[in-house]
Amino acid sequence: MSDYTKILLEEHEMPRRWYNIVPDLPEPPPPPLHPGTRQPATAEDFAALFPKALIEQEMTQERYVDIPEAVLDVYTLWRPSPLFRARRLEKLLDTPAKIFYKYEGVSPAGSHKPNTAVPQVWYNAQEGIRKLTTETGAGQWGSSLALACVQFGLECEVWQVAASYYSKPQRRTMIEIWGGKVHPSPSEVTEFGRSLLKQDPDHPGSLGIAISEAVSQAVADPKTRYALGSVLNHVLLHQTIIGEEALLQLAKVGETPDVLVGCTGGGSNFGGLAFPFLREKLAGRMNPTIRCVEPTACPTLTKGQYRYDFGDTAGLTPLMKMHTLGHSFIPEPIHAGGLRYHGMAPLVSHVYNLGLVEAIAIPQTECFAGALQFARTEGIVPAPEPTHAIAAAIREALACKASGEEKVILTALCGHGHLDLASYDKYLRGEMVDLDLSDAAIAEAMKDVPEIA
Amino acid sequence: MSDYTKILLEEHEMPRRWYNIVPDLPEPPPPPLHPGTRQPATAEDFAALFPKALIEQEMTQERYVDIPEAVLDVYTLWRPSPLFRARRLEKLLDTPAKIFYKYEGVSPAGSHKPNTAVPQVWYNAQEGIRKLTTETGAGQWGSSLALACVQFGLECEVWQVAASYYSKPQRRTMIEIWGGKVHPSPSEVTEFGRSLLKQDPDHPGSLGIAISEAVSQAVADPKTRYALGSVLNHVLLHQTIIGEEALLQLAKVGETPDVLVGCTGGGSNFGGLAFPFLREKLAGRMNPTIRCVEPTACPTLTKGQYRYDFGDTAGLTPLMKMHTLGHSFIPEPIHAGGLRYHGMAPLVSHVYNLGLVEAIAIPQTECFAGALQFARTEGIVPAPEPTHAIAAAIREALACKASGEEKVILTALCGHGHLDLASYDKYLRGEMVDLDLSDAAIAEAMKDVPEIA
Repeated sequence: MSDYTKILLEEHEMPRRWYNIVPDLPEPPPPPLHPGTRQPATAEDFAALFPKALIEQEMTQERYVDIPEAVLDVYTLWRPSPLFRARRLEKLLDTPAKIFYKYEGVSPAGSHKPNTAVPQVWYNAQEGIRKLTTETGAGQWGSSLALACVQFGLECEVWQVAASYYSKPQRRTMIEIWGGKVHPSPSEVTEFGRSLLKQDPDHPGSLGIAISEAVSQAVADPKTRYALGSVLNHVLLHQTIIGEEALLQLAKVGETPDVLVGCTGGGSNFGGLAFPFLREKLAGRMNPTIRCVEPTACPTLTKGQYRYDFGDTAGLTPLMKMHTLGHSFIPEPIHAGGLRYHGMAPLVSHVYNLGLVEAIAIPQTECFAGALQFARTEGIVPAPEPTHAIAAAIREALACKASGEEKVILTALCGHGHLDLASYDKYLRGEMVDLDLSDAAIAEAMKDVPEIA
Repeated sequence: MSDYTKILLEEHEMPRRWYNIVPDLPEPPPPPLHPGTRQPATAEDFAALFPKALIEQEMTQERYVDIPEAVLDVYTLWRPSPLFRARRLEKLLDTPAKIFYKYEGVSPAGSHKPNTAVPQVWYNAQEGIRKLTTETGAGQWGSSLALACVQFGLECEVWQVAASYYSKPQRRTMIEIWGGKVHPSPSEVTEFGRSLLKQDPDHPGSLGIAISEAVSQAVADPKTRYALGSVLNHVLLHQTIIGEEALLQLAKVGETPDVLVGCTGGGSNFGGLAFPFLREKLAGRMNPTIRCVEPTACPTLTKGQYRYDFGDTAGLTPLMKMHTLGHSFIPEPIHAGGLRYHGMAPLVSHVYNLGLVEAIAIPQTECFAGALQFARTEGIVPAPEPTHAIAAAIREALACKASGEEKVILTALCGHGHLDLASYDKYLRGEMVDLDLSDAAIAEAMKDVPEIA
């Protein structure tokens, strides 16, 4: 038996505050702008969408935010999450590197998303909100929000992209198991949805349309608010519990990472893992290379521009300075649905722009090849999104094999793939192809991005 | 934050031996009989199917069997598994009872099955076996065996009931992810399969047919053996790590169970949880009521007879003294596929016959109602099989509410339901019905059970 496979924390060892990287950065991130006035957005601009406490967190300059007791209590249903040493994968790769992965698939929803869903619901509940609305694609975020709502007695109403609603019913069922209500989007519930269905009764929907429907229902009712599962500062803040735990766990075995790799879609899983380590790096206490990994089919950081752009397709949200492929960009249907977002969290974009983190893009067949190596050694079948992080960890481990370096590699396995087995089936049958993106397609989508000095 | 939600064990605290209840029983269980001679079966009778080490374990009188280091090492990929205190469910039920559940869904396959798959594969590997064959219905066992085989470099060939193979492809994909080969059964690979396909090219298959195909391929090759996922003594032996861990975990918080409830299909999850506690009870160190929970649609213990019967539909296996509904009994298609077995583990049948454990049957709509209460409080979506255990725990907790008793209830959540969401969908839409079994139907199936004095 090896010294250890998993490094656990007891519940009483769980971090009791989230980490906000903003005050530690060498320069502040550019503020969001009001979509009409194009002046820095104020707290009031967000008041119809989010509760006061979350707007405060979105803008706070405090280094730490205490996690409420009631949130810690729900977190204990799956947290602290385990940190694994991937000894069997190391052996397969014949690498001198040590590979550690922080596993978030232990949550009831199977991903890291409940880390922010739970506090978001709690803060809404504290301000007397009765219902939350949101959009969901394949259903990871919608199911996590439903799980959180049922813990605090809030209603949850989810607009799920119609194509997913009908073709991937599993996560819709999960939302309903947790008491949530799901509409295919476009829906008959909203004026916008009805107008689209009038044009095309079989409209497949899109994330942008679903956002518009969820937002319109939230702003129409004073007891209803909207919830977002990634991108925003407060979402990344909540996810830092991942990195804070990983720091404690690595310290238990006397290791510090030389390389940290994480997959980036909206940026919340990456920010959650990386920011506490970036704090340590900025303070000179360790010096890891920190690397974002994105799909070649949606290369926001590696091929997008750092510009003010809208968060949604319809152009209704505040403008955010971020790496973007253009808000009208529609990514190819790759299997890692959670990485199909035209933009990137402003905080992740900012630290990338400052040169504090690196970024690479990896094609999906390499990701699934790595996922098979992982599953056949470590057992767990990864969700398609973290296969990108795994593929990057494998690249690094093989580089160590070539160079003889005994690097410590840290990554996050942000979810399991039990509801994504059809993607594996496609890969195993040799039917998966890589969808690289042409520069012309990116240039085309960038045309719609507003010009802001 | 509560005192604790989960009770964890460190890897070095993991039990290092399995527990064999046989020497502690007031009388020995009746031996299996050779199907031809009807004399007690010898080790040689099993030699074409199983490796020597497992046949020895099947017949051993030793109280404990050391777990090999290599098996412990694979166990650490998910073990020790957490023991949860279901505080949120207790609160919903407004019960003075304490409910604990041991969660086996943390294994990469999502159930308790790898606890025996891993040692079965290891012992076969030690004896130079290169390939294992098995049958699988929905795929829980087949995927667990594939996971174990890939850890030790053995080939894995699975015959999956054709109806499941085509209608529920997810677990087939899991088997392939872990490098296993899957055939729909009946298959073109075996003579028996070909003969059935000749009669009906669209034959839906059955577990009995799949067993026959897997066994025929194992006995035909000296480097191939067969593996069974429940029923047999050595399988229950391997699963006792569940109960041994739970004993250590309850001791950490100073609790002893007053009631233990577990679902019974073939009996391995129940035996694994219950036998270490039954040892403590027989030794006078605690006095829990121990209760089997089965579906009303397949009430092996509560309505079957304690008779010698075959383990398979075709009548090829040794005869085992067990509670049976008759080996030709075909259970109605209930959602808990893992509980659709005509017989019961001989060891579970024996302790039930001795009056050491109780049994009840619960209809599936009550089980799913309980599962929803569980998922909406504890978060985890249970597999259909352990919903029976949950429903029984809820019954007990509500009885405590009525009586005011502060009982400690222990149960096992032997798997998650991520691959069973279609069953929940059916329940949520009100389309699930209870399938009670008529006495006439049982009497009919019992006609085929051989008369043995």
